[in-house]
Amino acid sequence: MTGGGGEAYARAALSYLAEPADRALSQLLQARGAAEVLDAVKAGRPGLAPRAAMERWRTRLPLLPAQSEIAALADSGIRIVCPGDPEWPGQLADLGDEQPYVLWLRGNADLRFCCLRSVAIVGSRAATAYGSYVAAEFAASAAARGLAVVSGGAFGVDAAAHRGALGAGGATIAVLASGVDTPYPVAHTELFEAIAAQGVIVSEWPPGAHVTRLRFLIRNRVIAALATGTLVVEAGQRSGALNTARHARDLQRSLMAVPGPVTSDQSAGCHQVIRDWAGTLVTSAADVIEQLSPLTAVPPAGQAASPEPAARPVLPRDQLDPDSARVLDAMPRRGGLGTVRVAERAGLAPVTVAGCLGRLATAGFVERCEDGWRLRRG
Amino acid sequence: MTGGGGEAYARAALSYLAEPADRALSQLLQARGAAEVLDAVKAGRPGLAPRAAMERWRTRLPLLPAQSEIAALADSGIRIVCPGDPEWPGQLADLGDEQPYVLWLRGNADLRFCCLRSVAIVGSRAATAYGSYVAAEFAASAAARGLAVVSGGAFGVDAAAHRGALGAGGATIAVLASGVDTPYPVAHTELFEAIAAQGVIVSEWPPGAHVTRLRFLIRNRVIAALATGTLVVEAGQRSGALNTARHARDLQRSLMAVPGPVTSDQSAGCHQVIRDWAGTLVTSAADVIEQLSPLTAVPPAGQAASPEPAARPVLPRDQLDPDSARVLDAMPRRGGLGTVRVAERAGLAPVTVAGCLGRLATAGFVERCEDGWRLRRG
Repeated sequence: MTGGGGEAYARAALSYLAEPADRALSQLLQARGAAEVLDAVKAGRPGLAPRAAMERWRTRLPLLPAQSEIAALADSGIRIVCPGDPEWPGQLADLGDEQPYVLWLRGNADLRFCCLRSVAIVGSRAATAYGSYVAAEFAASAAARGLAVVSGGAFGVDAAAHRGALGAGGATIAVLASGVDTPYPVAHTELFEAIAAQGVIVSEWPPGAHVTRLRFLIRNRVIAALATGTLVVEAGQRSGALNTARHARDLQRSLMAVPGPVTSDQSAGCHQVIRDWAGTLVTSAADVIEQLSPLTAVPPAGQAASPEPAARPVLPRDQLDPDSARVLDAMPRRGGLGTVRVAERAGLAPVTVAGCLGRLATAGFVERCEDGWRLRRG
Repeated sequence: MTGGGGEAYARAALSYLAEPADRALSQLLQARGAAEVLDAVKAGRPGLAPRAAMERWRTRLPLLPAQSEIAALADSGIRIVCPGDPEWPGQLADLGDEQPYVLWLRGNADLRFCCLRSVAIVGSRAATAYGSYVAAEFAASAAARGLAVVSGGAFGVDAAAHRGALGAGGATIAVLASGVDTPYPVAHTELFEAIAAQGVIVSEWPPGAHVTRLRFLIRNRVIAALATGTLVVEAGQRSGALNTARHARDLQRSLMAVPGPVTSDQSAGCHQVIRDWAGTLVTSAADVIEQLSPLTAVPPAGQAASPEPAARPVLPRDQLDPDSARVLDAMPRRGGLGTVRVAERAGLAPVTVAGCLGRLATAGFVERCEDGWRLRRG
């Protein structure tokens, strides 16, 4: 941790006092050590920070636990990481003055390592069966190829994405707007335990913190910043997922969306992302992986190298020369015809047609019959 | 008709002998009158056209009806229009050497007038319920705003588009790959009668001609060229609708597609149009009209001027200053709290919070209570 345990403790303590993305605190921490800042806040020492900032941080001093209580959290499996720590994801620096001061983590995976190759899969809480299905499938495929799946732990698309990644044996990261020990929604308590076992739970807020509407929005920038790219699976026009998408765009991360029926309100936000924000329309996990890591894509265990190509089947018919294609096209579906009648139907000279019929016979399309030529069955 | 009745008859006759988009014939008709060309073909006169072309045209001479038979077709409501005729759509010239030599028409609408403001709505024969619904709805809305709906008369999306336009009292144009008196599919005989009554049926092939696989493809360029823009509603990856879309793109017409579920093969072609061919993703008829005629859009009868905007609703909450939004966010859902406790939760100085609570009360968000302040119901 930056500057040793004292600095880490001080940053943890400051997360009880200041909301994340407090620019006054960010700027202060660029110039001063966290322990010095914490001491100044506790003592109400003027001059260090703007008076209004100092006042709002001091407002929460009664809520600050004792240092021993914060230290004891480690026993319950909670750890803190600070900028510069080995587990700190360096890409958070892209957030500038809104970079987190500290992250609270719970879970077995290494956050920095997971995020190196990762995709945020986000969307509506009120996901349809379609949205949940797509989120789970895409997450499973991404996880099978070694991408960590980042999401927000909410109902709907988020939960389906986490579960898809877990089911594929991959790592998944839940970035919460509440404390890492205070699961929200409560119905996802078991899901969060599974994520902690196989991935990691992340929060900027200290243990015990509860969600609020604004905290979800502040949290979203971290989801977008952690992941290599963000995929919106379903989103209504006022969905918080669009807020995450906007952060991904502003951070110049890859931004993708899954289309859906125009009759579904839950796809309206995805269509907006594609049309108005230049998000990439993706229809498969292979599309997502190609967007994120065209060169480093790892095949899923037990499968061939490249992601499944959406290959257009090629019929032998497509490879015929134009005249032969026209002759084949003019053949009656039933029964046979002489060369001259075929020529009339095709609008080609009989001598041309005779040559084409020979080639078509060699290729197995037509055969001779009593009446002349006919299509071969099968 | 160009050069009078003799020229028109000659072009009609040539349509029995040569397939559409026969470049040799196109080039010949740029230099010579059609009557002269027809005479040369009948007589087998060498020198006028390449020998191979002359041979293939002469192959069908046995199928050419007598002039009186062709003239008699007018009695059954069939008319022919040639380049330069008042009803000839000038935009077909964009097809260059593949411009039709002649069009056979049946129906009450004026082809040229209809096409001035028109949209081609095309798609899969194997449309899903979703595709049929969207095609009918978009066609009805477009027709209600005075756009003619161009399509191919096939099962699925085509039929839904024609029916949607007819139901809205609009004009619709069916461009066939068979003769205008030889409906294909036969199950659409009644639909074609309704189209003839309220719109027009168009073909490059003479009466009595039957469809073939290649004729559908040749026909598609005319659909794309006639319409101001082409909308693909549903299309599998090998759908003929993608062929029409490619023509629209190559003709620099507006190209649009409706997204659908990524789980539906019938939407795969639409997604390809959007992602790989720079087609515009449209989610409503208003989108289509904006694409085609932003300035000339006519409102549907009885409605306000602009097409329905997909406006994002604005909550009063969105208009709060940041501190007040943060205070409102920190208010408990139930019960009341004193200013200092609200300040702790919001992470703002009590004096700031006091001011915010006053403004929030004025705006109707909070009210005083025994414990301090609480949210107002409703």
